[in-house]
Amino acid sequence: MNIIDIICKKRDGGKLTRDEIEFFVKGYTEGTIPDYQASALLMAIFFQKMDKEETFLLAEAMRVSGDVIDLSDIKGIKVDKHSTGGVGDKTTLVVAPLAAACGIPIAKMSGRGLGFTGGTVDKLESIPGFRTALEPEEFLGQVNTIGISVIGQTAHITPADKKIYALRDVTGTVENLSLISSSIMSKKLAAGSDAIVLDVKCGDGAFMKTFEDACALGKTMCEIGESAGKKTVAVITDMSQPLGNAVGNSLEVIEAIETLKGNGPEDITELSIRLAGVMIFVGGKASSPEEGQAMAKAALEDGRGLEKLAAFIKAQGGNPEVINDYSLFPQAQISTEVTADADGFVEEIKAERIGLASQHTGAGRQSKEDAVDLSAGIYVKKKVGDQVSRGEVIAVVYGNDEQKAATGAEEAKKAFRIGNSPVEKPVLIKEILGL
Amino acid sequence: MNIIDIICKKRDGGKLTRDEIEFFVKGYTEGTIPDYQASALLMAIFFQKMDKEETFLLAEAMRVSGDVIDLSDIKGIKVDKHSTGGVGDKTTLVVAPLAAACGIPIAKMSGRGLGFTGGTVDKLESIPGFRTALEPEEFLGQVNTIGISVIGQTAHITPADKKIYALRDVTGTVENLSLISSSIMSKKLAAGSDAIVLDVKCGDGAFMKTFEDACALGKTMCEIGESAGKKTVAVITDMSQPLGNAVGNSLEVIEAIETLKGNGPEDITELSIRLAGVMIFVGGKASSPEEGQAMAKAALEDGRGLEKLAAFIKAQGGNPEVINDYSLFPQAQISTEVTADADGFVEEIKAERIGLASQHTGAGRQSKEDAVDLSAGIYVKKKVGDQVSRGEVIAVVYGNDEQKAATGAEEAKKAFRIGNSPVEKPVLIKEILGL
Repeated sequence: MNIIDIICKKRDGGKLTRDEIEFFVKGYTEGTIPDYQASALLMAIFFQKMDKEETFLLAEAMRVSGDVIDLSDIKGIKVDKHSTGGVGDKTTLVVAPLAAACGIPIAKMSGRGLGFTGGTVDKLESIPGFRTALEPEEFLGQVNTIGISVIGQTAHITPADKKIYALRDVTGTVENLSLISSSIMSKKLAAGSDAIVLDVKCGDGAFMKTFEDACALGKTMCEIGESAGKKTVAVITDMSQPLGNAVGNSLEVIEAIETLKGNGPEDITELSIRLAGVMIFVGGKASSPEEGQAMAKAALEDGRGLEKLAAFIKAQGGNPEVINDYSLFPQAQISTEVTADADGFVEEIKAERIGLASQHTGAGRQSKEDAVDLSAGIYVKKKVGDQVSRGEVIAVVYGNDEQKAATGAEEAKKAFRIGNSPVEKPVLIKEILGL
Repeated sequence: MNIIDIICKKRDGGKLTRDEIEFFVKGYTEGTIPDYQASALLMAIFFQKMDKEETFLLAEAMRVSGDVIDLSDIKGIKVDKHSTGGVGDKTTLVVAPLAAACGIPIAKMSGRGLGFTGGTVDKLESIPGFRTALEPEEFLGQVNTIGISVIGQTAHITPADKKIYALRDVTGTVENLSLISSSIMSKKLAAGSDAIVLDVKCGDGAFMKTFEDACALGKTMCEIGESAGKKTVAVITDMSQPLGNAVGNSLEVIEAIETLKGNGPEDITELSIRLAGVMIFVGGKASSPEEGQAMAKAALEDGRGLEKLAAFIKAQGGNPEVINDYSLFPQAQISTEVTADADGFVEEIKAERIGLASQHTGAGRQSKEDAVDLSAGIYVKKKVGDQVSRGEVIAVVYGNDEQKAATGAEEAKKAFRIGNSPVEKPVLIKEILGL
């Protein structure tokens, strides 16, 4: 087999076989196929696309390129949850304890933040003492004992995806449905759960800007999951404005705790219950998503979700007292208020801009090696549809560097558009695919 | 300026600016842009194409990437001739002396053979003593003294084209009109002549298999030439069967000498006179291509072409006695006859197959570093339309290795298709563009 033939075949609109896809993924990962041939093939795929079968085979070839997690020692149907990434998206911190409290084993690997989006691992690490790197036995044992564990991605999972993604990033070959979906799904499949619930974000603060694109991505990922024999559901949700009010690591953990206490923002609360409901259903603990939802709501209201979070924090070395004493979190030394310039209604809060502003305060990373200020971030006090008065505080920027905080505040202000007429709040949950 | 933005712009169908094209060509040549980004851009160009202006700018950026030959010390309108490459194409060896004999200064750089096509430099080197590497002053001086010099391409001409071509070759991005034509024309423009006559080969033994593709290539190259202010003519000619009878270095030189003696095959003779006629016209020595053609014919018939060849060989250190004594050429030790399997008419001689067979006898190169057996090759005794009898010799394979010659003979035989009905000879000169 010859990589030039494979490039030309795809270039000319041909369908790649399993052998050809495996040859490429294996050869590129092992370095026998050089970057320049891989990027030519990726660009050919960009133009000629891949069909359902090719996309699955690509995900599958990347899945087996490294460690594949074996969760068979955990009893029950393990359900994974994945968000395609947004601004202020702390739902995992709420959903996972709720689903676990309802009997769904959660054995999850999460990522770190990059660019304008945050990552669950960074958020968890804002809890003093919390360890996101556990040994496999510890990880599995904890799920069997308390029903939940969330760790960072191991270094040896889907190396093919890491290498291909890094190449796509610098060769203009990111925006292709098959490449995006196989990248996400290869990791999810390697992570070993039996079912997968995907939260596909849609809007300004998400990778997919339009509803149509988000649905197409959700559909493609569901197809990969089903081809792999795993029940996969994609929930298409709004990311036209930040989710909840808090953006930044410790700020988001606090908001998640508040949500589990019943005091969370409406959107986070609603989304968490809906997602947990789907997880409880696909995990076989409810006979319908609605029943799952009712179970999740009950676990939130009677405090079982919060208890599960406390047990989870404690099991991974964190101080569970943070739940009652937020001063135990890293504290920002500086806070800068952002005020409204005029009376009116919040028409828009550009999520990506808020995400970037938060990143610039120190809460996020420009490149993978950057350190993160766990206390930094932005608290968005007004959401789309809210009425504001001139001079009213619409956001507060937290950080530990005067200049960074000032820059962040300036940028955060630009994210808001205030108009004269009342505005409808956006619909949060737009579509559910694969149920 | 950022190469990723340039890749994405072209990927999305945008038109690249002069600055962007120069940034790419310069950056890639100097190594600041890596192979994998260049190949992604080339694949994007493959799909989205380049318009006339972009194609010219690409040729121009490659032209200035290395040495640019200054022929201003040579009096008169210098006319270059280029063939897109075929099997048995020794026309330069006939055309250049004829045009020079009619007062057109020929200061030409030629290439070596690769794959199934031959190169003028290899052919010239089969003449004992012939030097194809001259110092610039020697080269220019010789053209001013005897009106003709042909040398190998210098190492420092269009390095950008060399690097980009090598990358295209291994990334499935060869077959694009703008990339092919700018590659050829960058070298022609850097070579410094005032006008260019292109022999665009068409058919099985050429890069362009169809008449339409050959015309499109000819047109694009003419456009580049005209944009650069150089009169450019493209002659579209048949390469469905080998040109002439001889394929292989010394065999072809002998055939060229025979042609200048008036004993050449019909096709080589006709094509050489037509091409020389066009050169004489665009070089301002005739008032029409027809007049140029008549002048070239006269120079062939009265022996001035042959005299010019002798002077040219002598000036570059070769032994001009080869013209009268072919035993001075390197001699093959082995000759193997290929015979017809049946009575009938030659319907087809697959030129590419003959070219490959010749390469396998030792006459050609698989890769640039390979040595060439200057005496090896194939003498095609019967051409398309000729009647043959079973057992009649249709080709003779020459070489110095029993096994290679046997393989070559086997392959050469497969190139022939013999049928029952008379066949028309193919039209040799199909179209002339740019006159």
